[in-house]
Amino acid sequence: MTVTTLRASELAKRFGFTLRGEDREVTGVGTLADAGPAQLGFLANPRYRAQLTATQAGVVVMREADIGDFAGSVLVAHDPYVAYAKIAALFEYRPAMTAGIHPSAVVDISAQVDPSASIGPHVSIGARSHIAAGARIGAGCVIGEDCSIGEHCELVARVTLVTRVRLGKRVLIHPGAVLGADGFGIAMDHGHWIKVPQLGGVVVGDDCEIGANTTIDRGALDDTVLEDDVRLDNQIQIGHNVRIGAHTAMAGCSAAAGSARIGRHCLIGGGAGILGHLEVCDRSIITAMSLVTHSIQTPGEYSSGTPLMDNRSWRKSAARFKQLDRIARRVLSSDKDSE
Amino acid sequence: MTVTTLRASELAKRFGFTLRGEDREVTGVGTLADAGPAQLGFLANPRYRAQLTATQAGVVVMREADIGDFAGSVLVAHDPYVAYAKIAALFEYRPAMTAGIHPSAVVDISAQVDPSASIGPHVSIGARSHIAAGARIGAGCVIGEDCSIGEHCELVARVTLVTRVRLGKRVLIHPGAVLGADGFGIAMDHGHWIKVPQLGGVVVGDDCEIGANTTIDRGALDDTVLEDDVRLDNQIQIGHNVRIGAHTAMAGCSAAAGSARIGRHCLIGGGAGILGHLEVCDRSIITAMSLVTHSIQTPGEYSSGTPLMDNRSWRKSAARFKQLDRIARRVLSSDKDSE
Amino acid sequence: MTVTTLRASELAKRFGFTLRGEDREVTGVGTLADAGPAQLGFLANPRYRAQLTATQAGVVVMREADIGDFAGSVLVAHDPYVAYAKIAALFEYRPAMTAGIHPSAVVDISAQVDPSASIGPHVSIGARSHIAAGARIGAGCVIGEDCSIGEHCELVARVTLVTRVRLGKRVLIHPGAVLGADGFGIAMDHGHWIKVPQLGGVVVGDDCEIGANTTIDRGALDDTVLEDDVRLDNQIQIGHNVRIGAHTAMAGCSAAAGSARIGRHCLIGGGAGILGHLEVCDRSIITAMSLVTHSIQTPGEYSSGTPLMDNRSWRKSAARFKQLDRIARRVLSSDKDSE
Repeated sequence: MTVTTLRASELAKRFGFTLRGEDREVTGVGTLADAGPAQLGFLANPRYRAQLTATQAGVVVMREADIGDFAGSVLVAHDPYVAYAKIAALFEYRPAMTAGIHPSAVVDISAQVDPSASIGPHVSIGARSHIAAGARIGAGCVIGEDCSIGEHCELVARVTLVTRVRLGKRVLIHPGAVLGADGFGIAMDHGHWIKVPQLGGVVVGDDCEIGANTTIDRGALDDTVLEDDVRLDNQIQIGHNVRIGAHTAMAGCSAAAGSARIGRHCLIGGGAGILGHLEVCDRSIITAMSLVTHSIQTPGEYSSGTPLMDNRSWRKSAARFKQLDRIARRVLSSDKDSE
Repeated sequence: MTVTTLRASELAKRFGFTLRGEDREVTGVGTLADAGPAQLGFLANPRYRAQLTATQAGVVVMREADIGDFAGSVLVAHDPYVAYAKIAALFEYRPAMTAGIHPSAVVDISAQVDPSASIGPHVSIGARSHIAAGARIGAGCVIGEDCSIGEHCELVARVTLVTRVRLGKRVLIHPGAVLGADGFGIAMDHGHWIKVPQLGGVVVGDDCEIGANTTIDRGALDDTVLEDDVRLDNQIQIGHNVRIGAHTAMAGCSAAAGSARIGRHCLIGGGAGILGHLEVCDRSIITAMSLVTHSIQTPGEYSSGTPLMDNRSWRKSAARFKQLDRIARRVLSSDKDSE
Repeated sequence: MTVTTLRASELAKRFGFTLRGEDREVTGVGTLADAGPAQLGFLANPRYRAQLTATQAGVVVMREADIGDFAGSVLVAHDPYVAYAKIAALFEYRPAMTAGIHPSAVVDISAQVDPSASIGPHVSIGARSHIAAGARIGAGCVIGEDCSIGEHCELVARVTLVTRVRLGKRVLIHPGAVLGADGFGIAMDHGHWIKVPQLGGVVVGDDCEIGANTTIDRGALDDTVLEDDVRLDNQIQIGHNVRIGAHTAMAGCSAAAGSARIGRHCLIGGGAGILGHLEVCDRSIITAMSLVTHSIQTPGEYSSGTPLMDNRSWRKSAARFKQLDRIARRVLSSDKDSE
């Protein structure tokens, strides 16, 4: 691993920041608290402004308004967190990619693998699947039949695409994710379940990211769809025929049941759930562990649940929750009486 | 992939439906909205009845009562969704199965694999395990020691059976599922945890389906048991020594803690949880994201949680939830006074 | 598999128990209800005391106070569950471990594997990673670059360590777990997400256990840390830069979002969630499916949610929850008026 060294002035020029103070070289990034003189720190959240006094960072990225009497080198950026993300990417170590198919991989004779793609150890690729240029398929991935993987996708390791999964370009999928498994379709027939065939596929747009152990089922008839730039954290469950709009982000352990439609630019909190067949409009925010039980037509922030309490107090409130209708009838009728 | 073509009259005869109108050939299935003249559509939910007017479907499966003045070909069925499931299965493409053991698989010398079973690439099978006739073990599965896999089971890919897992016939397990891992048994001994050995196994009945990334731990002493025809969606967690009754279905991300007993013909909603050692009687329904905190003795539908609200309103209700005991004492005592 | 036979007197001597009654040989352990004359049973929960009358167990482990007029052989222990755990471990069958690297494994030339370690089939180990003495890496595991695995760790099967994961000694990881995947770091830049590089690692202390399909992301700048003796059940999600204190146990499907800090000796219930950047102090208990929305400074038990109700009653309470602020304003103001 070689060390990357960059001048503050180069960074300013490359990304359109303004340099204030001495032009210094940095070899990495860090938090304000931990960065040393050869590292670049950043101040995105004003809450940490006090750390400026003591920081050893050689260069700090921040907003104009936060500089105050800070005497060190500053890269002035409109959005310091975005600026930091761009700079940090320059210092990120990326394992070298070796084009070609590892000898332990098993590739069906009808599959097409671009010569510039990298297929790791113990990968298997099924009939009629296609791996485009620059794609990287890590160790232990299983690609089933009739899948296509766009240019510069990366399946880190142990990802499964079951069947009829089509990825756009630059899709990043973390280990343990399963795309294209059967949707959960069952019908009760004389006391026994019979399985409803899942004939659709999964379509994932460009620049999506899919977290570790996340599952996205294939559609029953039509496809399950993620539009471009959808960002899914770990352990998310996406049911069959769900559609997720572009630029929506979902945090860990959230879930959308079958045929739910989530709009664009939504933020779904950790552990939140969306019931089947509902629509959530563009720019909706669902807070953590809330359950969406009806469609949302107005952009905004939505919640359910009760606040955290010490268990003794909570038991009292919880017991009273059962009496709430009785309480309300009493209070609101007397309310009316008195008005 | 060859095209399957079937006549409406053949379908009527095979499944006992009544054909109304012209006898047509179909080559696939679709929704009322999307199906073309060579496809069969279905009307199961009366909500979609209006789509009958415009549908291009060559044949439609529906109830007698929904036909009205629809002039096209109809297969009359008592339960159109079940009828659709049966018909769709005829058109489902199933990858060809090659009997035998892939050369990259690693099979212990004491394991028994029926010659008609198919063992995929990069599979490993441990000591004393047994794979019955017609079973299909997909790429990357790991079968540990002392497991048995019944006739015509399918482990799609990357499934792990750790140890002492016994599957009945026709069990279908999706990628990433883990059966037979250690139950979560720990005991606090002078400030440190010690591990409680997990000596049991997992028993899965005939015709069960287990979703992607679902986990079913093996028992501490006795076995964890799924009776016949249990249907589990993705990312479900089943603790050690749980017993799930026949024909019960659990939706994605639900969980049952150790030694819970779930009855037959239950429906457990997505993200719902059942605490340890509780009993849920036959034909119970638990709605999504509810927590079962006491045993259920009466069949019916059960819920917990609060409704979705805009965040501003929710914050007010949530703050008041903390005062609920005070409110109730005030209201219900005055209620009593006034009676 | 050979049968282990042990005398009650040997067990008493080895672990410091007192033997009451006849000295008998046992060849295994069981529940009071199921154990036979050649097995040892235990009574830890006084609720099961009535089973003493009918038990066939050859020897029973229990507290002095529970013996009563039980006439059989007894091993008297201060904590019968801990005693049982220690005894059961003697009867646990453990698959033989074969030192060395399976021929199907793919090990980078720069990786170091101790000759006493066992590397199973279809494992891959990346550059500069190190596997210490006595470690066991089961079938299908993927170890990325720059990882280190301490002495006597066991990765059961299909575990992924993505990069910069450092395990202490005797860490046990169950199948499907993913450690060291990218933390969920994204920043909105002119309507598109850009990825924030995840430059940290994951550090896991000695004697930790990590459940099946659990995910632990690597840190953004610093590391994600589990201190010694942390016990995680299945399907837990740990975000980047979380720190979990020693001896804390988390039950299945719980989650901690980015930069949360959980203290020592905490118990986190199944499905519970902890929001990002919060602190939970030592010896906190969070009940199942509660959401921690603020930091906890006082040890104790904490909860959120509402009790389980039949759906009809629940619908009434849930509807009234929306009116709770109105109800409270009416009641508490009149309360004040009347005081």
